[in-house]
Amino acid sequence: MAVGQAISMVDSRLRVTGSIDYTLNFELPRMLHGAMLRSPHAHARIVKVDASRAARYPGVAAVLTRDDLIGDHIDPYFGLILQDQTPVALDRVRYVGEPVAAVAALDNDTAAEALELIDVEYEELPAVFDAEEALKPDAPLLYPGPRRVIFGRADVTARSLAGTNIVHLFKQRKGDLAQGFRQSEQIFENTFVSPAVNHLALEPHVTVAQVADGRITVWTCSQNPHMIQRQIAGIFKVPLADVRIIVFTLGGGFGGKLNCKLEPAAVLLAQKTGRPVRIVARRAECFLLGVQHECKVKLKTGVKRDGSLVAVEAYCYYNSGAYGDTSPNLITRGYAATGPYRVPHLLMDSYGVYTNTAPSAAFRGYGITQVAWAHETQMDIIADALGLDPVELRLKNVLQKGDSFTTGEPMPEMHYNELIESAVAKIGWKKTPLVRRDGNKIRAKGIGVIIKGMATPTTSTSTVKLNADGSLNVLTSSVEMGQGLKTALAQIAASEISLPVERVRVSEPDTAFTPFDLMTAASRSTFCMGNAIREAIKDIREQLFDIAATHLEAAKEDLVLQDGKIMVRGVAGKSLSYVDAIRQSKASNLLGHGVFVSGSGPDGSPVVMDFETGQGYGSAEWHPAVVVCEVEVDTETGQVKVPKMHAELYAGKVINPRLCELQIEGASIFGLGQVLFEELVQDTNGSITNPNLSDYMIPSFEDMPAALSVHLLEPHGVTDVHGVGETAIPPARPAIGNAISRAVGHHFLDLPITAEKILRALEERKQR
Amino acid sequence: MAVGQAISMVDSRLRVTGSIDYTLNFELPRMLHGAMLRSPHAHARIVKVDASRAARYPGVAAVLTRDDLIGDHIDPYFGLILQDQTPVALDRVRYVGEPVAAVAALDNDTAAEALELIDVEYEELPAVFDAEEALKPDAPLLYPGPRRVIFGRADVTARSLAGTNIVHLFKQRKGDLAQGFRQSEQIFENTFVSPAVNHLALEPHVTVAQVADGRITVWTCSQNPHMIQRQIAGIFKVPLADVRIIVFTLGGGFGGKLNCKLEPAAVLLAQKTGRPVRIVARRAECFLLGVQHECKVKLKTGVKRDGSLVAVEAYCYYNSGAYGDTSPNLITRGYAATGPYRVPHLLMDSYGVYTNTAPSAAFRGYGITQVAWAHETQMDIIADALGLDPVELRLKNVLQKGDSFTTGEPMPEMHYNELIESAVAKIGWKKTPLVRRDGNKIRAKGIGVIIKGMATPTTSTSTVKLNADGSLNVLTSSVEMGQGLKTALAQIAASEISLPVERVRVSEPDTAFTPFDLMTAASRSTFCMGNAIREAIKDIREQLFDIAATHLEAAKEDLVLQDGKIMVRGVAGKSLSYVDAIRQSKASNLLGHGVFVSGSGPDGSPVVMDFETGQGYGSAEWHPAVVVCEVEVDTETGQVKVPKMHAELYAGKVINPRLCELQIEGASIFGLGQVLFEELVQDTNGSITNPNLSDYMIPSFEDMPAALSVHLLEPHGVTDVHGVGETAIPPARPAIGNAISRAVGHHFLDLPITAEKILRALEERKQR
Repeated sequence: MAVGQAISMVDSRLRVTGSIDYTLNFELPRMLHGAMLRSPHAHARIVKVDASRAARYPGVAAVLTRDDLIGDHIDPYFGLILQDQTPVALDRVRYVGEPVAAVAALDNDTAAEALELIDVEYEELPAVFDAEEALKPDAPLLYPGPRRVIFGRADVTARSLAGTNIVHLFKQRKGDLAQGFRQSEQIFENTFVSPAVNHLALEPHVTVAQVADGRITVWTCSQNPHMIQRQIAGIFKVPLADVRIIVFTLGGGFGGKLNCKLEPAAVLLAQKTGRPVRIVARRAECFLLGVQHECKVKLKTGVKRDGSLVAVEAYCYYNSGAYGDTSPNLITRGYAATGPYRVPHLLMDSYGVYTNTAPSAAFRGYGITQVAWAHETQMDIIADALGLDPVELRLKNVLQKGDSFTTGEPMPEMHYNELIESAVAKIGWKKTPLVRRDGNKIRAKGIGVIIKGMATPTTSTSTVKLNADGSLNVLTSSVEMGQGLKTALAQIAASEISLPVERVRVSEPDTAFTPFDLMTAASRSTFCMGNAIREAIKDIREQLFDIAATHLEAAKEDLVLQDGKIMVRGVAGKSLSYVDAIRQSKASNLLGHGVFVSGSGPDGSPVVMDFETGQGYGSAEWHPAVVVCEVEVDTETGQVKVPKMHAELYAGKVINPRLCELQIEGASIFGLGQVLFEELVQDTNGSITNPNLSDYMIPSFEDMPAALSVHLLEPHGVTDVHGVGETAIPPARPAIGNAISRAVGHHFLDLPITAEKILRALEERKQR
Repeated sequence: MAVGQAISMVDSRLRVTGSIDYTLNFELPRMLHGAMLRSPHAHARIVKVDASRAARYPGVAAVLTRDDLIGDHIDPYFGLILQDQTPVALDRVRYVGEPVAAVAALDNDTAAEALELIDVEYEELPAVFDAEEALKPDAPLLYPGPRRVIFGRADVTARSLAGTNIVHLFKQRKGDLAQGFRQSEQIFENTFVSPAVNHLALEPHVTVAQVADGRITVWTCSQNPHMIQRQIAGIFKVPLADVRIIVFTLGGGFGGKLNCKLEPAAVLLAQKTGRPVRIVARRAECFLLGVQHECKVKLKTGVKRDGSLVAVEAYCYYNSGAYGDTSPNLITRGYAATGPYRVPHLLMDSYGVYTNTAPSAAFRGYGITQVAWAHETQMDIIADALGLDPVELRLKNVLQKGDSFTTGEPMPEMHYNELIESAVAKIGWKKTPLVRRDGNKIRAKGIGVIIKGMATPTTSTSTVKLNADGSLNVLTSSVEMGQGLKTALAQIAASEISLPVERVRVSEPDTAFTPFDLMTAASRSTFCMGNAIREAIKDIREQLFDIAATHLEAAKEDLVLQDGKIMVRGVAGKSLSYVDAIRQSKASNLLGHGVFVSGSGPDGSPVVMDFETGQGYGSAEWHPAVVVCEVEVDTETGQVKVPKMHAELYAGKVINPRLCELQIEGASIFGLGQVLFEELVQDTNGSITNPNLSDYMIPSFEDMPAALSVHLLEPHGVTDVHGVGETAIPPARPAIGNAISRAVGHHFLDLPITAEKILRALEERKQR
């Protein structure tokens, strides 16, 4: 059985020999090179765009301006939920770096030179950069007009929110808040801030587009080929069948490659020139194409003296930047603002807010990361104040099977006790003091516990083809982006069809051929696409059994697949190979479909939350995670090391233990970087001042924990896969943050916790 | 309903703007250019191949010699049925032009220069070029060793034929020949010769190969992606799932692009270099990569004085050239050596024979063309001798429903009477004399009637994807090669799913994605793949009906598809659009498979003929065709014009009348070229002396009939498609030939009928 084995990635040889076909390496004959002219203003009306000089510049094949967005042939507005984006700006720009025009030229240098010849006249408008500021009645309004919404119920609020900077507002009301606070014996009020950070995939955004006879082909590094397809079809008013999105292996995605970015402009330029056009984002541009939502979370938590949580009042302000993008959905993750804990009385308002900053996008940890930073820091503040062990406080409140979540839904068994106890044992939580001083180094331990939902409702479909030689092609639109998905899916397919992994080949997405998948994100793909492939192979299996039942004169229910053969259970030597079965069928291949749809709570109700009360079902599957760590703070330099870090997750059935662990290790390191270093810095005009790999810090090998470990809780006999891809980021941040706070004796509420902040806190403490 | 409409080709805009993506225009980054060193000898033992100087030549990335074909990683032998080919020659060469080595270099010039540095030492062997000569006991033997066979029953004879030059021998025995000749009142014995001709697709053979981590991708202009896939998988010992064959639109195929040609060498060079390698055949090489079988047919026909055919003794000698290729199957078309006529007593031996000439391949008309030349010329000879009208003679003998064919199988209704009568009416057969003299011009009429089978057993499979917007992707491995197949399949799919053709997109083959199709040849694709697509859409329709039955509260059997909606029959206004149905399904697309297998005679017996008696079933479907024409012979120059030409075919349900007619017009012109001009000329050493577009003549626009027409017999209410793609070539040749013979007063038995031959015949006639 391939499933459960720590096999090497199926593309490992290509990886180590530098032979992966990244889109960046893809070229077409006669290909032109595109570049974007970007706004120098955070908020301005566009008075004039004159690209005539650029158009005449030698080597320029076409320029693209807002003039190209007018006419019946095009609907320039697109967006994941709110249709508030255009390929280049129409009437106004809303952030520094918004595309205003584009050029396609024979080479990149010519394109860059031509951009300088485009005359744009702006009329500057007042700008707003902070989400709370943007909510004020007199704040500059980014979208004064009506809104266009394409996604389900979001339009109900979107309509009522026109005339504000609110992208979306999600509310939760549960119990009786006033009564809850009256019952509380102590109340804690704090505000927690997570800054904007960048995905920083090593592969930049890159798109190649070709248009022939109205039919559009786009090669693009996207996590979401079908969403790109839908949006391109919408913009260019062509059937989905005529929009072909081809995706190769990505050099990282992390949520930053889910929405249309460069694609619409590339298609427009390809359409204008009749030639293929490639646009590659320079590194500085990648910082403009999507960031993790800056977020402020205000928590007011009422507790009993024994640590029992009684009431929470929470306000989440997610800074959406200039476009709605995924915000209307992402900000509903405010449902986890109280963490994985029982809270009888709750008021939660979660805002997505337009501001004049670079647009926010989905980011690995999807809205949970920010609230987890808040609730887990708050938990440690409470524990300290009540003199409780932070672990005990969590164990006292953590959700048990049947407990009601903030959505009102009853929780399944989430194994929190097992996970927490295993994690603290691993780190030796009780063996040594939580804080130890050793010269100018202070060592301290920390913990973070979180709950995370999965994208729901969710659909994956797959087609499989069992070839005449008994090898298998799996057609899927899921995206390999370094996470090892091709390997996991190959293992699932190999196990289901009972073949060695070497005889299974998993496709890359090509929407002309591969069936629908919702996206490769949200820790969903191994689970959802894995199940779709299972269904597709079940379809093949039925066909094999039909053939074999006749041929072997056996009842279908007695047949099993084993090592490329159909066997009769309990009858040795009676078998039919797949090759012979296909020959019998005369079809030369067998074809199977699989559809996996998940969108129901345990009682069968659809996963849907009421927007006014937040009650309902929040996710078809809930992902728990615990991270524990030990940090070492240098009191002289303020520098932090994380010598030990351990992640503990419920994984259900583990497909490939090593890949699973590696993915979680990566997530842990993401968390580490975000606590210690990462932050997009903006000047007062709204320009990002550190959009490069020198000034924007991410963890280096120097920063890796000496002991970095992962434990996957995989109960005996479990068969269902449980998503784990991103679940370690949200707890990693507060685990490290809490340990630092413990070491320094000061609760840091704002990220990142830089050396400067630590030294300042140590200084203040000395002075107390 | 899209079916039945003469819509423009779906790729017509691309065609007229020169934007078709031919493989010749396809490039990959870092691509190398390959070239083949070819043998100067028709038959020789290879003593030595030393490519060391070429390998050191600047700009050369790799050389390929027989040394690369040795080892456990490779099985160098391939072939459609007999595995007698290797990527480059191993121990001997068997025709002038056989590949001996290959080079991959930075550009074509360097590759060509490097070829000259390869030292090959040959030991010449006696050669044989004529099929009959090659059958003599003392003829040089091309394959002295045992044979490797991969195709069904062919091995039975192949084994017994080792030690001869016979590729395959197919026999038919029916009735009592001796008795038949005794009953005959007149006996006619003649030998008819068709020379080798070239397919002359305007697009040359071109292949680009890439190998990464053992996985092989080949972009190639092939009519048979799955056969290329199978052979490459066999040579390189990898699963079919790891061999990806991608085929774009072909610039003509005509049977010449069915087998592996340049692909194995390109893959080997790509494997050696780790870079993509392209090999383009120069025009002269295209003449070496496959030709129509030169063929000699000896007919001894016994008749009654009233013209009834009584007995035929027939010997067909198909010159297979140096490789078996398709010959073991093609030569069974000797079953039509007597034409579409009742022949109670028959002996027929059909030989495929190895000779030291360029390998023969499938060619539009597939083995029928050569025997049709024989039987239809023979029919006119008989008519003349008996003083019968050639049309009357044919009507007297032509197969009627229930008559027994040479295979012994009862014929279905083939509509010969209707076809012949309609054709002769069109040409005014009886209105004017069959021969008219006008100064130095002689006008005469001619007719040809044939029967043709289809590749059987035959399999096509398809997958279809109904997208969220109700547009449809059809996944097929069928090849568009100018015949309009994409259009016909789109029309079939559009009609079945009840959508406009514009919302249907038909894929090109990509074996990683598209399911199995036997090949695009044999006039089978519209019929076979059309039916597979119908089945696939039936699968979708069932899903749509299931959803709609619930949603519309209607019985499934009352539902119909109409204009993108599911309607309840007889209930106005009650409907569900595909878009809404897919939304209901939550799957975001619906997937359907279709499998079409045809391999049975009308009584359900498998289509299989006994190799010793030729009795059984020869085809799942029989294609009749009639061509009539009027020629004008210039008695001073010997030149022939064909002012009128008309083809009459049974077409069953016509999908696209205009495309269908155009395809038949093309076939008619193929026939015209082959009667009047086409012939590969060889010198005594076996070199082709006219492998170029100056010396090898094909029809020009000057040669087109002023009146070229087609009539498709499409009985009212018929629903089954009937293949027509190549059926007009076989009758076109004798129709023109018979008209010339009638004009000149001399029966020409050998093709082509050049001006020189005509002048000579006119001269001889004068002298009589």
